[in-house]
Formats: sequence, C-alpha cells, structure tokens
Amino acid sequence: MGRWQPNARGRLEQAALELYGERGFESTTVAEIAERAGLTERTFFRHFADKREVLFGGAGQLDELLRSAVAAAPDGTTPTQAVAAGLDAVAAVLTERRDFARRRQPIIAANAELRERELIKLASWAVVLADALRERGVDPSTATLAGEVGIAVFRIAFQRWVDDPEATDLSEGIRTSLGDLRTLAADDR
Amino acid sequence: MGRWQPNARGRLEQAALELYGERGFESTTVAEIAERAGLTERTFFRHFADKREVLFGGAGQLDELLRSAVAAAPDGTTPTQAVAAGLDAVAAVLTERRDFARRRQPIIAANAELRERELIKLASWAVVLADALRERGVDPSTATLAGEVGIAVFRIAFQRWVDDPEATDLSEGIRTSLGDLRTLAADDR
Repeated sequence: MGRWQPNARGRLEQAALELYGERGFESTTVAEIAERAGLTERTFFRHFADKREVLFGGAGQLDELLRSAVAAAPDGTTPTQAVAAGLDAVAAVLTERRDFARRRQPIIAANAELRERELIKLASWAVVLADALRERGVDPSTATLAGEVGIAVFRIAFQRWVDDPEATDLSEGIRTSLGDLRTLAADDR
Repeated sequence: MGRWQPNARGRLEQAALELYGERGFESTTVAEIAERAGLTERTFFRHFADKREVLFGGAGQLDELLRSAVAAAPDGTTPTQAVAAGLDAVAAVLTERRDFARRRQPIIAANAELRERELIKLASWAVVLADALRERGVDPSTATLAGEVGIAVFRIAFQRWVDDPEATDLSEGIRTSLGDLRTLAADDR
C-alpha cells in the first residue's frame, strides 16, 4: 500500500460524518472511521488528534480569519460593520463547506459534550471579535457587547442557513439577522 | 453535637468561597469546606450535591424566575421589554446576593471547567427566554434572537456590576446595556 493517499483528510471526514450520523458520535471508533475510509488508524492520527477534532478541526483558522477581517475593515467602519465584516469572512469559508456544515450540525445537536464544545468555540469567537474591536480603538465595553451580540446574530443566521435547504448565502442571512437585531433593539421604548 | 445547625447552608457557602479564593476550586475538598464551617461532610452533602453545586446551586430557581417574569409581562409588551422584565427579576435576586456574586466571579474566571459550566448556564437562560417569548406569541426566529441577545446584554451588565465597587443596582446596568445595544445595532448603516 502506498504511503501517499489522495485526499485522505477528505475521505476520513466523509467517513466520520457518515458513521457519526448512522450510529452516533459516542459509538463510533477511530478504527471504524479509518476502515470506512479505506485508510489506516495511523493515517487518521496524522490528520486529526481524535474523533472530535474531525468536527472542530478548522476552528483555529476561523479565529484568525475573524480577527484579521475585523482588523482589515477600513477606517471609519462602525463597530457593527466591523463585526459584520468578520462574520462575512467566516461565512464565505462556511459556504464553501456547506455540505460538511449541514451534515455536522445534527451530530453536534445530538451530543451534550459536542454541544458544550460548540458553545465554547462560539464564546471564544466573541472574545476574538471584542479583542479585534478594541485594537481598532473601540471602547472595551462596546467591544465586548458587539462581540457577544455579533456571535448571537451569527448563531441565528447559521442555524437558519443549516435548516433551510433553499438558503445558499450565509452572508445574506447574517445581514438579515443584523436587520432583525436593529428592529428588536429599537423596540424597547 | 445537635443535629440542627443554624444557617448551615450559609456557613458552608461562606467557607467554600473562602477556600476556593485562597487555594483555588480544584485544590479544595469537601472535607476542608465542612471543617472550616465547623460542620460535617454529611451536613455538606445534605445541602449540596458536590463542591461545584455551591457555585451553581440557585441556577434552576433563576431559570424558573426568568420564565415566569417574561410570562407575567403585560399584553402589548415588546419582545425586548419582556426580556428586560425577565432579566430585572434575576437582577433583583442577584442584588440581594451581591457579596456572594462578587466573590464567586473571580473563582469562576480562574477555572476552565467552571467557566464552561457558566457558559452552559447562560446558554440555557437564552433558551428559557426564547421559549417564554414564543409562548407569548413572538415568532420563533425573533424569540431566539431576543433570547441570545438578552443574555449577551446580561453578561456585559453583570460583569460591569461585579467589577465596579460603586455599582449597586444591576437592573440599572441592564438598562444601560440595552441602551448601548440600541446604539450599536443602529450604527450598521
């Protein structure tokens, strides 16, 4: 058997999603994932630290993308616009990985440990957004609020995008949620 | 030694907070908490399931309070006003427990497991708020957004209230954060 496996990572991801969907995340072993992908466990561990990593592997890169998109927003961009720019950058990547994102979501929803991990990931994004806004000179308390609220908006838009087979553009969904937020926030009078 | 211990729960709480603050949550045992409080471990376990429960014991009651305060808001209350009513009810309880809340916060902040537990608690509050709004006839997507954003507002106000020795009224802080949210949400134009 050759050492180089074409698209090993993609095949492992595919096999893992299938198995997590069929028998649940808990009940799936790395050996089974490797077998389904026609690869070895050793190859699995060359790509992923463990079976959870298949579902959360790209999180660090998205952190960095969020931070740099907020930093790159032009001068004079308002905090909410800068947050929207960050979320748009993430949305563009997720749109490319639409099938993965949609198959991943019910697996996360079905498992308490994965739901917690997802919460923690999103909370860390809120912190990344707030830090990036502070670096733009936004005052700390507005930055924190904008980060938290940005992630709330993202979660709603993301869930809608995952649930709706017609929805193609996650960025558009984020714009819609930001509009909903404006309406909602203005209703407290 | 008599079986009835006056304010055993309060004494155990006090002892636990002291010890968690002095030597960290991880390194404190139930035996030490009981000893510091001048009580037995058995008494500890009559009041708390484990040492984490000392910090999260009231969460279930606050869930119920949130839900019922949103439900009790008069007809014609907007979603944001209903969320504010829920958060105000929680704020009133926390204001009563101000010393506890302030001593608890750095203990949570210092421990990853406790921070995760706190995130999960707040995420569950967002769901409680959204459910209660839906029961008032708010459409599901607005209800979810209002729940998430309400909790974001609460977190900011709570952190400010804990950090600022001058701040007395958490409800007032929540109003301020809701005002900040209105400003923030309106800036995306």
